[in-house]
Amino acid sequence: MALFEKVAIVGLGLIGGSLARALRRADQCASISAYGRRAAALQQAVEQGIIDHYCLDVRAAVRGADLVVLATPLSTTEPLLRAMREVLQPGCIITDVGSAKGVVVAAARAALSPEQLGLFVPAHPIAGTEQSGVEASFAELFEDHVVITTPLAETDRAAVQRITQLWQGTGARVVELSVEHHDEVLAATSHLPHVLVYTLIDCLARLQDQAEIFAYAAGGFADFTRVASSSPEMWRDICLANADPLLTVLDRFEDHLQDARQAIAAADGARLLEIFSRAKQCRDDFAQARGR
Amino acid sequence: MALFEKVAIVGLGLIGGSLARALRRADQCASISAYGRRAAALQQAVEQGIIDHYCLDVRAAVRGADLVVLATPLSTTEPLLRAMREVLQPGCIITDVGSAKGVVVAAARAALSPEQLGLFVPAHPIAGTEQSGVEASFAELFEDHVVITTPLAETDRAAVQRITQLWQGTGARVVELSVEHHDEVLAATSHLPHVLVYTLIDCLARLQDQAEIFAYAAGGFADFTRVASSSPEMWRDICLANADPLLTVLDRFEDHLQDARQAIAAADGARLLEIFSRAKQCRDDFAQARGR
Repeated sequence: MALFEKVAIVGLGLIGGSLARALRRADQCASISAYGRRAAALQQAVEQGIIDHYCLDVRAAVRGADLVVLATPLSTTEPLLRAMREVLQPGCIITDVGSAKGVVVAAARAALSPEQLGLFVPAHPIAGTEQSGVEASFAELFEDHVVITTPLAETDRAAVQRITQLWQGTGARVVELSVEHHDEVLAATSHLPHVLVYTLIDCLARLQDQAEIFAYAAGGFADFTRVASSSPEMWRDICLANADPLLTVLDRFEDHLQDARQAIAAADGARLLEIFSRAKQCRDDFAQARGR
Repeated sequence: MALFEKVAIVGLGLIGGSLARALRRADQCASISAYGRRAAALQQAVEQGIIDHYCLDVRAAVRGADLVVLATPLSTTEPLLRAMREVLQPGCIITDVGSAKGVVVAAARAALSPEQLGLFVPAHPIAGTEQSGVEASFAELFEDHVVITTPLAETDRAAVQRITQLWQGTGARVVELSVEHHDEVLAATSHLPHVLVYTLIDCLARLQDQAEIFAYAAGGFADFTRVASSSPEMWRDICLANADPLLTVLDRFEDHLQDARQAIAAADGARLLEIFSRAKQCRDDFAQARGR
């Protein structure tokens, strides 16, 4: 028996599209409807069998659904929840895929009724590519990746269990964190690296003739900067949505960068070697744990 | 006819070993000797046919060579040149593979005779992996990569031409830059990224339980941090050797980072989007120019 009858995916982009494909593959739902803004892309998704039908009106898309998955930019969470709350079927589970959870939880508290809030399971699949759009989606995106859920004190545990099963069906490993802890960890390992890379490239581009400076960059630079090919709109939203934890870790990083700067300026090789060696050890451990 | 009779590679690591393999493949020299410190690895390189013989004494390794390639850590350049200068055969061309050129040129000026200095061709293959050692070397390392030469006013042009041919034979594209320009460009696109990544990982590792924080890091983080698996000793040397250009670009970067910080703190989405969008455009152009 399918885990859900009718799944409504609100926002059929890379994540929403990949989830739809994975749900199909695992036979976890009877039908999938999608809300989006680009009719041509949605029509193509229907023709490819990724979804069953689409609506350009979010209320029509979620009507009758027993699961609604929000997969739109963070800034749209509250308006979309407000738009759909009157038509959500009683007992409908709501979840999301947002990269910052504090702001999503605040939006849900503001927009949903107490009963709806109890069935809202905040979640974040730690997966993606630098591509965007349903055209770049694929069913294997979540395999061997982590999905973090951040249930609230009032969240229905049966709903958490069903969302956990849903993600496990895509091949992901599901872990539970508090909203605050999630936002701190992601600020450190994802949001700050994006800010550093976007900022560095913009800095270098304005330093001198950019075509020339990048012409001598090697493979390491290509790897290091890959995250900057991600959607600027999405990352603007994430940085603003998770501003406090991001600024906290950014300030810590700047202190460390000043330490490294002083070691270089003072030709303190021992100090530099200490920083670099500790970092290499951590990075090697991380790479080994990931199995590559 | 081979381009060189006897090539001596001083330092048989990833770069020196890969160059030896590539020279063999292109049949560019009659024999290859190597100097190194790890007898077991050197013996294995002989058995694998990567080199013809090895010496643990640098004078013995370079005696009779018509080309000496320095491929050791930057801090060893001057002592090694001093050690070998008395035994270098007249007319022997000397080159190096160092990641910073100002410091190498200063060492060559200090250690070599005027005739030897005229035959010294500073060079830098922009290629590598996060691995180290001759065990990780491979003949294709330089294919479709750039090698920058930074000849001096007094450098013999025929020697530059032969070093250019040597690198072209490995499949690389050779370009000429001034010493100063090379060091500025590499500080920006290579040395600063390494400092940022080493520093960030060290910062995060001390922020909280490191095993946990890295457990939730995704593929983007693995790409972003790959450069931190490189040799800490090598990168300490590079940062100290190229300290002035590195500190200059680091200070510029910190100004930009403060701008981005202020945009986040002020919830200035328009400003953030501007920075992120310009960076994405640059990064996409760079990736397209590299053909991936």
